[in-house]
Amino acid sequence: MKLFLRLSYLGTAYNGYQVQGDQPTVQRELTRACAELFGQRCDIVGCSRTDSGVHANMFCVTVAKKGSDELQTSIPEYRIPLALNAHLPEDISVADACFVSGEFHPRYDVKYKEYIYRIYNSPTRSPFERDRAWHYPKHLDDAALANMQRAAQLYCGTHDFTSFMAQGATVAHAVRTVTHASVCRNGDVIEFRVAADGFLYNMVRIMTGTLIAVAEGKIGCQQIPDIIAAKDRSRAGMTAPAHGLYLNSVVYENIPKETL
Amino acid sequence: MKLFLRLSYLGTAYNGYQVQGDQPTVQRELTRACAELFGQRCDIVGCSRTDSGVHANMFCVTVAKKGSDELQTSIPEYRIPLALNAHLPEDISVADACFVSGEFHPRYDVKYKEYIYRIYNSPTRSPFERDRAWHYPKHLDDAALANMQRAAQLYCGTHDFTSFMAQGATVAHAVRTVTHASVCRNGDVIEFRVAADGFLYNMVRIMTGTLIAVAEGKIGCQQIPDIIAAKDRSRAGMTAPAHGLYLNSVVYENIPKETL
Repeated sequence: MKLFLRLSYLGTAYNGYQVQGDQPTVQRELTRACAELFGQRCDIVGCSRTDSGVHANMFCVTVAKKGSDELQTSIPEYRIPLALNAHLPEDISVADACFVSGEFHPRYDVKYKEYIYRIYNSPTRSPFERDRAWHYPKHLDDAALANMQRAAQLYCGTHDFTSFMAQGATVAHAVRTVTHASVCRNGDVIEFRVAADGFLYNMVRIMTGTLIAVAEGKIGCQQIPDIIAAKDRSRAGMTAPAHGLYLNSVVYENIPKETL
Repeated sequence: MKLFLRLSYLGTAYNGYQVQGDQPTVQRELTRACAELFGQRCDIVGCSRTDSGVHANMFCVTVAKKGSDELQTSIPEYRIPLALNAHLPEDISVADACFVSGEFHPRYDVKYKEYIYRIYNSPTRSPFERDRAWHYPKHLDDAALANMQRAAQLYCGTHDFTSFMAQGATVAHAVRTVTHASVCRNGDVIEFRVAADGFLYNMVRIMTGTLIAVAEGKIGCQQIPDIIAAKDRSRAGMTAPAHGLYLNSVVYENIPKETL
């Protein structure tokens, strides 16, 4: 058995999730905290990589003794979140812990993931949304939102999303199934939600940039299928900045949504 | 005519609103930014004082040339918010500017103010609520919330609120009229909203601490009138921490809610 953790983090202070030498990353903090709490060097395997400045409302990892598929500890699982949090910085928080099979893999066993992209749509910036939403000052009216929503709907389905992948990214194949995509406004915040069985590098940020191009009338929503079919990054919109992006949920076949 | 500004700020980095020597305060930043933008030394008068760590969704100030009731500038008022924001740190943002009579006073002319106190009620901390809500880990169920709501209702009316004023604070008289007080839950966040014609020092934070004592069964909600009548700080609950408190709105008789 190895340990499965659900956590959240504010990505502002980190160079993304994945360990990169001595740079501050979420994985590095988790590796240090687990070594301190469990008294052994640990392998931490994550559900995803997130870029510098990207946040997670839910991120999943497994923890095992270095080089093994096992973690042994006398700490009962219900105590692990608070115990680990005492070793973690305040911008990372473990919410939930349980033991899972040694064969479980937090990346390969994902059924689907959901991302949220937050746009702060107000003429002046908000001190509370700094580093947490993309500030887009020009008002997006109901007609613009309706067009964004129509375009988002056209992302749904099984497609080759090469047009929505960062140039230079390498991947075995670029076919992904988007099961949900929607745009809604809540006060000054516009949220784009998208769920899929997997995501290409920068996919949600390019989807968001394309929705903004639709809102601005630079791309018609009926062009989305053509942009997808073109398999050409240059046809889609800009890459929206990292700090508006949140990994929001990660769903597995065999792990209940709430284990506590 | 002098300049009237509505602004918001994240109070985390500041020793409150009011200038205190060389310490970082919101008023100090505004004074510096106005001097830079308008090319003259300015008096900034605020609607209130907020403590270290307290936030404002809306805070109002007037700006006039030092020692006068006038501000002269060739910058049109609709351009002032963005122009000032370029001189302010990112945790302060001016939303709105207009010219008002030189006799207008942003503190004495307040009709009522509303505060929100945010409680983050979840067993584990949230990276996103750090410094922005009081983390109260023990679950407050529907019965506890109903008692808090009943107690909040009993704050309404015109009372001497000495029991809800920090010990040692001095004030001409402690009678205030609370026009609205309510408690509601939105996901993991419990919000206490309270509006009044004025507030005593720490009044909202002591009201919040008292509501928590009610939720915990340490104070019965029917005791609230006795606690008010006692005019004795020791009868009310603890002072909730500063970082959950937001000045949410400031309403004047003669200034429209939206000037832009």
